[in-house]
Amino acid sequence: MKLSQSFIKTFREVGKEETARNAQLLIRAGYIHKEMAGVYDFLPLGLITLNKIQNIIREELNSLGCQEFQMTALQNPEPWVKTKRWSDQVIDVWFKTKLNAGGELGLAPTHEEPITNLMTKFISSYKDLPVYVYQFQTKYRNELRAKSGILRTREFLMKDLYSFSVDETEHQKFYDQVDQAYMRIYTRLGLGDCTYKTYASGGAFAKYSHEYQTVLPVGEDTIYLNQDKTLAINEEVMNDEVLNDLGVKREDLTATTAAEVGNIFTLRYKFSEPINLKFDDQDGIKKTVFMGSYGIGVSRVMGVIAEKFADDKGLVWPENIAPFKYYLIGIGDQGEDFTNILHKEYSSSILLDDRKLRPGEKFADAELMGIPYRVVVSNKTLENNSVEITNRRTSETKILSIEEFKQLLRD
Amino acid sequence: MKLSQSFIKTFREVGKEETARNAQLLIRAGYIHKEMAGVYDFLPLGLITLNKIQNIIREELNSLGCQEFQMTALQNPEPWVKTKRWSDQVIDVWFKTKLNAGGELGLAPTHEEPITNLMTKFISSYKDLPVYVYQFQTKYRNELRAKSGILRTREFLMKDLYSFSVDETEHQKFYDQVDQAYMRIYTRLGLGDCTYKTYASGGAFAKYSHEYQTVLPVGEDTIYLNQDKTLAINEEVMNDEVLNDLGVKREDLTATTAAEVGNIFTLRYKFSEPINLKFDDQDGIKKTVFMGSYGIGVSRVMGVIAEKFADDKGLVWPENIAPFKYYLIGIGDQGEDFTNILHKEYSSSILLDDRKLRPGEKFADAELMGIPYRVVVSNKTLENNSVEITNRRTSETKILSIEEFKQLLRD
Repeated sequence: MKLSQSFIKTFREVGKEETARNAQLLIRAGYIHKEMAGVYDFLPLGLITLNKIQNIIREELNSLGCQEFQMTALQNPEPWVKTKRWSDQVIDVWFKTKLNAGGELGLAPTHEEPITNLMTKFISSYKDLPVYVYQFQTKYRNELRAKSGILRTREFLMKDLYSFSVDETEHQKFYDQVDQAYMRIYTRLGLGDCTYKTYASGGAFAKYSHEYQTVLPVGEDTIYLNQDKTLAINEEVMNDEVLNDLGVKREDLTATTAAEVGNIFTLRYKFSEPINLKFDDQDGIKKTVFMGSYGIGVSRVMGVIAEKFADDKGLVWPENIAPFKYYLIGIGDQGEDFTNILHKEYSSSILLDDRKLRPGEKFADAELMGIPYRVVVSNKTLENNSVEITNRRTSETKILSIEEFKQLLRD
Repeated sequence: MKLSQSFIKTFREVGKEETARNAQLLIRAGYIHKEMAGVYDFLPLGLITLNKIQNIIREELNSLGCQEFQMTALQNPEPWVKTKRWSDQVIDVWFKTKLNAGGELGLAPTHEEPITNLMTKFISSYKDLPVYVYQFQTKYRNELRAKSGILRTREFLMKDLYSFSVDETEHQKFYDQVDQAYMRIYTRLGLGDCTYKTYASGGAFAKYSHEYQTVLPVGEDTIYLNQDKTLAINEEVMNDEVLNDLGVKREDLTATTAAEVGNIFTLRYKFSEPINLKFDDQDGIKKTVFMGSYGIGVSRVMGVIAEKFADDKGLVWPENIAPFKYYLIGIGDQGEDFTNILHKEYSSSILLDDRKLRPGEKFADAELMGIPYRVVVSNKTLENNSVEITNRRTSETKILSIEEFKQLLRD
């Protein structure tokens, strides 16, 4: 991408009503635009970043044999009435609307009901099981407050995966596979070192569920992490029974603030029972399908990563999800010509700052936008057949030969 | 994809309430699922097809220097009040909803207002222009009737592109480029021979707009096509003045039924004026930005293609957008082993039917699903080092050597 041809701009300041640091930085760096509280557009750099996170999640889920599909936001009340979740008292974040042709519709805050209903058409025998389906889909939640930037919004992109199994044994095997896939995902997103599988409330369906919590000072949760970091418990379920269940002592646990970046639920028969999702087993006996659901808030994760790594100069993206790996600046005629040629050949990894601005302004934007490497090519570096490359995270600067840099671009 | 591992099934029949042939076939072939009238989910094969259409559009728009971004469905009334389009009398397909925190929101049926509003933040000088931005985004339209399958739905995927120019001359240049890009898109989608740029109403903003109309018996529009097919006029604007403007005679035009697959609008100052999107020109004089908008209903186009090419055996996809190019069937142990190996190596172009079904059932599903080539590998064909390949559209069957088929897979 050439910045001279993009409409995006950076800003020194954002409106005072934006109090979350992730959103302040993402707005200032031109990644997102605020429509209203809790509702954000994704501008070109933001959309590329979001897509990179999506692709990492997609690859890991496909490797488990999950199938991608896409459901609608508009919801027919019928299956939700069956599970008693149509009520605004039960789900207090519904957006509801009226159909001109008559009747009330909802905007899905999650998709357990419609997917269970859909599967009644496709699952009838043990031979049809297991089924693992997921989508990247926009969820709507009518949150009363929305003050955490893109960590908690009223319209957001979520990956939701649903599993349908013959019994708990089959379910548990897949549940464990998803757990491992999630840890691979967080590692690839750069959050591997600071994200913990955490015991949380199982809601109405099971004793526990698991959350994935990233240690973060502005996180909304408190988790208790044990000394060797192999176990974490969400404060909301911390009590003697849980400590006993998990065989840990209160004094070995340390409280820390964290942000949820994913969750996995054993749903058991909570949805399949009222919606009547059954199958014939090998003996021809009707049984109820055993379900699980597995979420990752994609835009939320982007916000967590923005918060986690930002410093006083701006965003700092991990390489795997940065919209571009290199922020290229040409100084002087020869420098400009050379960077144009490089950009043409390696456009997918280069953000070329060819705007008519002073180098200092470009350096500041390179930092604010959080591109992993700033690369400067000037008439002077070209005399030595070299480029100057600066690591955004460490600020370390190196001189590379042009050939070495081209090798990096080819990698 | 291996059909044995997918949850999708084909159906002999669909419910009687589904009267549109495109939806009947897409449901029977397992591409979509109907949530309610005018609201459809995209199942794995349907989503792949939709994504292929999207990618063709994306490539052509990127080649014009357009930038992809993504806005939200939730709409703040403010900019819509300024253009007087918040009213249900003016836009009669609004879905509206209430915010728990107070206030009314809408679900965007289109995005002229929010994009114009967003650009007030990024455009202030002639140096910032032109700007070309587009998105693939879900639109919501509260249609009173929804009986055309995925041709007209209440929730659908649309590509919407917006242009911002200094004046009409600059605008017209881009408008013509988009026109040419649209024709390249329809050609790549397999609709090149039967899609015509059509003069249509310019609405409140200009004398004419242009629609792209695909000749289709079940289409909702009537267009008048001249003999050499270089000109088409939508019935809604057919009158003596138009004939005179375009220099054609009524008797040289033939009425034909068609479905709209895209449109391009010169918006002039219709949105930029009330929303106050202005720029300083080279002499420092404030001017209003000149706008255009350009739409393609992505899911609608998929429906048109389904209708257009289907025959009595089912769907017939053009190669460029078929979810897979080859429907592979192995017969007998050796045939099955061989097809498994082929699938492993070329999984992106092969849909492997490895279900425990009779060959006849698989042949019928291959036809219903509309995969361009059915390829059969049996112990017998293997004896001759060959495969049997049948063209879905022409029903022509050929014997290819295994090496020839592998060459096709590599292409």
